[in-house]
Amino acid sequence: MNILITLDSNYLWPLRVMLTSLGLNNPNETFDIYLMHSRLKQDEIEALDCFVKKNKMQLHVVEIDDHYFNEAKVCMHYSKEMYYRLLAHKFLPKDISRILYLDPDILVLNPLREFYETDLTDYLYAACCHKKIALKLVNQLRFTFHKIYNYYNSGVLLINLELVRNNVDENEIFAFVNKYHNRLILPDQDVLNALYSGKIKGMDETQYNYDARLYLYYKALTYGKCDMEYVINNTVFLHFCGKKKPWNKRYIGPFLSLYKHYEKWARILSE
Amino acid sequence: MNILITLDSNYLWPLRVMLTSLGLNNPNETFDIYLMHSRLKQDEIEALDCFVKKNKMQLHVVEIDDHYFNEAKVCMHYSKEMYYRLLAHKFLPKDISRILYLDPDILVLNPLREFYETDLTDYLYAACCHKKIALKLVNQLRFTFHKIYNYYNSGVLLINLELVRNNVDENEIFAFVNKYHNRLILPDQDVLNALYSGKIKGMDETQYNYDARLYLYYKALTYGKCDMEYVINNTVFLHFCGKKKPWNKRYIGPFLSLYKHYEKWARILSE
Repeated sequence: MNILITLDSNYLWPLRVMLTSLGLNNPNETFDIYLMHSRLKQDEIEALDCFVKKNKMQLHVVEIDDHYFNEAKVCMHYSKEMYYRLLAHKFLPKDISRILYLDPDILVLNPLREFYETDLTDYLYAACCHKKIALKLVNQLRFTFHKIYNYYNSGVLLINLELVRNNVDENEIFAFVNKYHNRLILPDQDVLNALYSGKIKGMDETQYNYDARLYLYYKALTYGKCDMEYVINNTVFLHFCGKKKPWNKRYIGPFLSLYKHYEKWARILSE
Repeated sequence: MNILITLDSNYLWPLRVMLTSLGLNNPNETFDIYLMHSRLKQDEIEALDCFVKKNKMQLHVVEIDDHYFNEAKVCMHYSKEMYYRLLAHKFLPKDISRILYLDPDILVLNPLREFYETDLTDYLYAACCHKKIALKLVNQLRFTFHKIYNYYNSGVLLINLELVRNNVDENEIFAFVNKYHNRLILPDQDVLNALYSGKIKGMDETQYNYDARLYLYYKALTYGKCDMEYVINNTVFLHFCGKKKPWNKRYIGPFLSLYKHYEKWARILSE
């Protein structure tokens, strides 16, 4: 399976934790990890490559020329990495038909093959809508782009590369950002939703993009079905959304002990 | 290493979880598991034996004649199993010099060799004192047995069998229970503390018998040092003391996600 990651140096450690959980819970799969970056140092990449090998995965480094996105000058106050997952098809090998983008602030708790093989006929992407969080954002954006009905989280994004190659145009994205950059809140996610919302297949968020802040909300919403037992045994992607991250001091939450557990294994695999 | 377990049918599942955590976090050790029981059914023992083998451990079943403790008639309202850890030396092979008793409501989070090899010269046991919980119990018992200074938790009990064989006498225990049974709160633990408190080597409770209910207390007591990071990387025995157990519905607590994680692995190993 193909996994896409894009990050800067600040996320190298959480990335290891994510990859550790991916490997431990998918022991019989082979993974090709495509790393898109422009600013990582050579020794950082070498260390990551070594770690990925220990996880029995293969790392493919896709370096993006730092000047590549200079034409999108108006958005220089956003990180350039925001474009990587939307324009990955321009830089990835042409024989790859699909790839799964994963944020590094994710734990993979269960086998992901079923999600990876989601039927994407006529869809550019598969992703999940964080209904509770989305309401606010959708309402804010609705005034601008009346086509938005759902607001998808772009942290777990299954990409139908074959279709994307013919339908996602970098000029359209640059023009959009150029025009609306004052109104965008979460740049890459807003672009994804404003331009391609109708072409995204919606998936169950408690399984495929569980927001770790919303444990009590999910549990109440499902009349208790989505409890801790359910999450540990069914949730594939547990996403530590928001500013407070479990690898930082002072984080609290019901999944902290689990996260620290995977951090420990990442540390053991790093030795 | 020798591990002693004593239980009835109600704890067969948590026992599997405990053994799973023991194996996963001590991958290079060999364990001989001694199961003392009198009431397990043959098919329960066979299933457990199969599970233990999958964990690459060896099970030794020590069946206690159900009539054995009939002479201690006065205590029939306590479970007979309460005597097993105190009188294990009468039933275990004579060539074993030490054994570690573990309650089934424990997760083993880290390597236990250092604890197992604790110097026990002149000590019958090594155990931990739950200082916060103990205060109340010590005060209650102090009126009866003025020798008690510390009140040790018997859920993690390293037993110096060589010394115990010559110093722990079943008749003394029966006589004690006979005399004081009206005043005992937690029978086996009270007997251990009242009779042998002075011969127990006290160990650090945050490492070797961490009470899962006391996360915030331990953290405050150590000025933040004993946080989740510390527990996951240093605590060897995480003990789910008290009536509320993490394998039951409605349990809440900071270690629930971790417990469910180990339950999942126990289930996978059970398949």
